[in-house]
Amino acid sequence: MAGTEGGAAVRNLMLMVQYDGTDYAGFQIQPQAMTVQEELQTALAAVLGHRVKLRAASRTDSGVHALGQIVTFETSNPIPVRNVAGALNERLPLAVNVVEACQVALHFDPRRDARRKLYSYRILNRDSGSPFIARYAWHIAEPLDVETMAAAADLLLGRHDFRAFCAAGGAAENTVRELYRFEVQCAGDMIEMYIEGDGFLYKMVRNMVGTLVEVGLGQRPAEAVGELLANRDRSQAGPTAPGCGLCLVRVSYE
Amino acid sequence: MAGTEGGAAVRNLMLMVQYDGTDYAGFQIQPQAMTVQEELQTALAAVLGHRVKLRAASRTDSGVHALGQIVTFETSNPIPVRNVAGALNERLPLAVNVVEACQVALHFDPRRDARRKLYSYRILNRDSGSPFIARYAWHIAEPLDVETMAAAADLLLGRHDFRAFCAAGGAAENTVRELYRFEVQCAGDMIEMYIEGDGFLYKMVRNMVGTLVEVGLGQRPAEAVGELLANRDRSQAGPTAPGCGLCLVRVSYE
Repeated sequence: MAGTEGGAAVRNLMLMVQYDGTDYAGFQIQPQAMTVQEELQTALAAVLGHRVKLRAASRTDSGVHALGQIVTFETSNPIPVRNVAGALNERLPLAVNVVEACQVALHFDPRRDARRKLYSYRILNRDSGSPFIARYAWHIAEPLDVETMAAAADLLLGRHDFRAFCAAGGAAENTVRELYRFEVQCAGDMIEMYIEGDGFLYKMVRNMVGTLVEVGLGQRPAEAVGELLANRDRSQAGPTAPGCGLCLVRVSYE
Repeated sequence: MAGTEGGAAVRNLMLMVQYDGTDYAGFQIQPQAMTVQEELQTALAAVLGHRVKLRAASRTDSGVHALGQIVTFETSNPIPVRNVAGALNERLPLAVNVVEACQVALHFDPRRDARRKLYSYRILNRDSGSPFIARYAWHIAEPLDVETMAAAADLLLGRHDFRAFCAAGGAAENTVRELYRFEVQCAGDMIEMYIEGDGFLYKMVRNMVGTLVEVGLGQRPAEAVGELLANRDRSQAGPTAPGCGLCLVRVSYE
């Protein structure tokens, strides 16, 4: 994990970042709206004295949160790595927080080199909403059958062509991915899902969740999920679940 | 709890309201900034077809939250009480939620008739902050001695002149209040306080918490709290704790 040491040498630094995505138009920088990337690049420019170009493990969408987003940037500023997180957090808004920083190899790329990503999705399943949970969960008042949802989620495990769950606008040519984990569990009136795979297509997690919710409402049987994998027809899948329930929990590397 | 029944008769309706106060300039309406009262009055005007004047149990400050704020308003609109919360929640932003509505006596006043108020205050006591907790807790990185804070809190229980903990701008002439409960407990790295009394002076909870934090940091002994009650000198008390950690949990009536 060591790049070239020394004063003016270029280093590749990696940050683990948490953010509350509610008030951002997603991670990736764009001209007309505030993004997490812009917050980070502004803080980095102030700390390092030069503009940086961030690379990120995942371009999370508008309203989506992260506990373990991974970003990298190159710098020749000799700031000690142990001081980076603190210096950034002094300048970042409360909604964005750098958990840790470390030096990685110059050729390391947080997106290309990612081996697994773990997302969580939360649904508040009760009559009344809550202002303290609304930012972090999809509120569904109608009772959901969690056992049937979990049975449908099991059908998604393994290596499949997930084309039916890829939103229009996804650039991937190869739509085969492998899911290692798709848990659906209850914690009181909160339904918590953990979805881990070797990679995800555009809005794939939210499209799978939206389909499972239709299963949980009894609008389609659990087996319909298997048919979607076979048909590979996006128009047959359920709606895209809202971004607020989604969180990028962890990105794993070799 | 019954007012006059019937179509055009005026009723006094009570709402229990929850809100995330982070993005509001407090509860009470003001000209240049968005407030919780304005959100509620706008939604009520749309539902009832006329403007209302809200009365509230507590004018929470900027950034302060509520799980159980109580407000009342008069209306001659014959809307069934059971439909009020749903109609309002359809129009309210996610940050404000009406938990329930009921009819109360015409002379009922949520502020004057309140017998007890329960507040909570949360401190995240660990090295790193969290974007998901920053809205709802005061982040203090230096370790706090919770046992000593709890001992100091005990000294505040009972009937005292709390003038030392009343911020400038408080209008109260009588600064004697009774505290029934001041718990300080740990839940992991979160310090949770529950403070219940027959009433509170302006910023009294936050000034007490700010003083207890100085005790927890070892900057003054627990006994100093007793001296503050005796001296009644605001300039001797600790700083005002930030609003984000404070939540109005419950208002009790006879």
